[in-house]
Amino acid sequence: MIPSKEYLRIPGPTPIPPRVLNAMNNPIIYHRSVEFGNVLGETIEGAKKIIKTSGDIFIFSSTGRGVMEATLVNSISPGERVLVLVNGNFGKIFADIIERFGAQVEILEFPWGEAVDINRFEDYLKNNRSIKAVFVIHCETSTGVVNNIEAIGKITSKYGIISIIDAVSSLGGIEISMDEWGLDFVLTASQKALMTPPGLGLVAVSSKGWKAVEKSTNSRYYWDFRMYKEAQNRIPKQTPFTSPVSLILGLDEALKMIVEEGIDNVIERHFQVAKAFRDRIKSYGLKLFPKKEEWCSNTVTAVKSPKEVDSDLIIKFLKERFNLRIANGLGNLKDKIFRVGHMGYQAEEIETRAVALAIKSVLEENLNF
Amino acid sequence: MIPSKEYLRIPGPTPIPPRVLNAMNNPIIYHRSVEFGNVLGETIEGAKKIIKTSGDIFIFSSTGRGVMEATLVNSISPGERVLVLVNGNFGKIFADIIERFGAQVEILEFPWGEAVDINRFEDYLKNNRSIKAVFVIHCETSTGVVNNIEAIGKITSKYGIISIIDAVSSLGGIEISMDEWGLDFVLTASQKALMTPPGLGLVAVSSKGWKAVEKSTNSRYYWDFRMYKEAQNRIPKQTPFTSPVSLILGLDEALKMIVEEGIDNVIERHFQVAKAFRDRIKSYGLKLFPKKEEWCSNTVTAVKSPKEVDSDLIIKFLKERFNLRIANGLGNLKDKIFRVGHMGYQAEEIETRAVALAIKSVLEENLNF
Repeated sequence: MIPSKEYLRIPGPTPIPPRVLNAMNNPIIYHRSVEFGNVLGETIEGAKKIIKTSGDIFIFSSTGRGVMEATLVNSISPGERVLVLVNGNFGKIFADIIERFGAQVEILEFPWGEAVDINRFEDYLKNNRSIKAVFVIHCETSTGVVNNIEAIGKITSKYGIISIIDAVSSLGGIEISMDEWGLDFVLTASQKALMTPPGLGLVAVSSKGWKAVEKSTNSRYYWDFRMYKEAQNRIPKQTPFTSPVSLILGLDEALKMIVEEGIDNVIERHFQVAKAFRDRIKSYGLKLFPKKEEWCSNTVTAVKSPKEVDSDLIIKFLKERFNLRIANGLGNLKDKIFRVGHMGYQAEEIETRAVALAIKSVLEENLNF
Repeated sequence: MIPSKEYLRIPGPTPIPPRVLNAMNNPIIYHRSVEFGNVLGETIEGAKKIIKTSGDIFIFSSTGRGVMEATLVNSISPGERVLVLVNGNFGKIFADIIERFGAQVEILEFPWGEAVDINRFEDYLKNNRSIKAVFVIHCETSTGVVNNIEAIGKITSKYGIISIIDAVSSLGGIEISMDEWGLDFVLTASQKALMTPPGLGLVAVSSKGWKAVEKSTNSRYYWDFRMYKEAQNRIPKQTPFTSPVSLILGLDEALKMIVEEGIDNVIERHFQVAKAFRDRIKSYGLKLFPKKEEWCSNTVTAVKSPKEVDSDLIIKFLKERFNLRIANGLGNLKDKIFRVGHMGYQAEEIETRAVALAIKSVLEENLNF
């Protein structure tokens, strides 16, 4: 194993704070002991404060993609009519996963770089009363656009349907108020603004969501929320299968850091850092990919490559000259945009200032911009 | 987080060697970089040496239970007739998972404490020619019994059916020679003899097994072996979703330790440690749970509680007096047996000697045995 000195500014996985690394660098605890039950309980309580919910939270040994599958096999049944709001790559992925499990998937598409149009969404529901559930990505990591899940939650509540929110690249960096906004399932993963290595998926479930879990006829075992709930009700608190102990020790510590700073302060910090980064980028004459600044994410900024420069080249020179790693566009946006993460332990203004400057320098000195 | 000073001698999760902890205690590497691709490739090559296969190996962000589900949704189709050989708790769990995914499950049961009777198994196949696949637990962690998967592999090869082996608590402590024995799917997890924290599941697939993967009609996404194979064929080597980077850095190091010592030496060490432990236990007048010593596992020893002593009490006093944690029986064996792990970093004679002595002391001084 070669320790990496790379300066990681992709939109996840993100760098791990020393406190979190130290928490993981400890002996394994027996996963059915009182000691571990307390850690698990503390972790769940921490997550509730950040998601702003009094509902259930389940933690899986899994990546984000795993909890996307987990949430859909628990929330809907084969044959049910569901709507996926797609405005980027991860929305498309969500639709693909749902189709594999036999639901009747309808897609409402919006141009990449734009947010979901709330009026078009509500009109669709008005005209399609048998839709059971709506799936949407909160922050489209592929485009740097944030969708208005507050409005989406309020509309789904009004129409009595289930809302399923992918908050993988938003939670901990962009405001979410699950209960107040009437969201039913909020899923996320450890390796973005939660500052923990990849390998944990989290799902929060509302009481309305829980009714859907009980009704779902999908085959499920590893993802079965009912088994997780039963295990959490044991004394000591447990997960149904062997817990990913080290990663949970890390997440527990990361959540403590967020709670100590205050979730609202953490989100304000992300906002300020992202805004300062966007301002610098624009001052260089570069253009943001999202069509309106109000749609821009606090956690990832997507920038258009200047004409005739492939983003691949920008990425290559940043790596060579600064050992700095940023991300390319996904799908059709490959080589057309580049994406910079500022989430979790990345979200410090002093660091994004250096990143912006490095981008400017590479464009000027290596790419004659 | 409270660092644990507990002396963990349960049959997994097991203690982590400092080399493995150190490997994980490093910055996150970008999971689609050349650097990480090399680590992933090295980890897969290490696992191949230990499983003794030239087939494919896939690594999941998952516990052992996850790769049980993964293997069955990839190896069989709903409605297919499959046989599960059950001689303990984990065999029962395997049957339960398979039933949830719609296969036609038949169970051949053997008394807990006995190994699968190979003749009865072959007779069953002779009389039931439409069985497509056989599922068996290599080391039944619940009873400390090892099944003869060499014989099972040879019989399934003869009858042209698929063999699926759960090697979670055996791999790295008990011999497996996947290709030579004609095994089709071998699944395992990181937290037992592989000396890595829980959170990784591994599945090895033979070329015959691969044909079953391509034919399976099960709905799958997160567990879809085809996506894992495609991602491994990319340059650099990848996993389809975000890799559990830290845990893979740990597993890579643990596999290196095993390869450096030599897998056959590691297995011989496990055998010697387990044998010495059994000899000591028997010398105290205690009885092993497996009915024949030849069936006893190298990785976990199940011991009958002496008459009128609940194993719960033995466990309690070991914890109180020595901060030593061993495991109770599972299911019907709760309080009737106790189980001691000696796998991976636990498998040192000097340590099991102390464990045996502590058990003797507790029985004599606290329980009037």
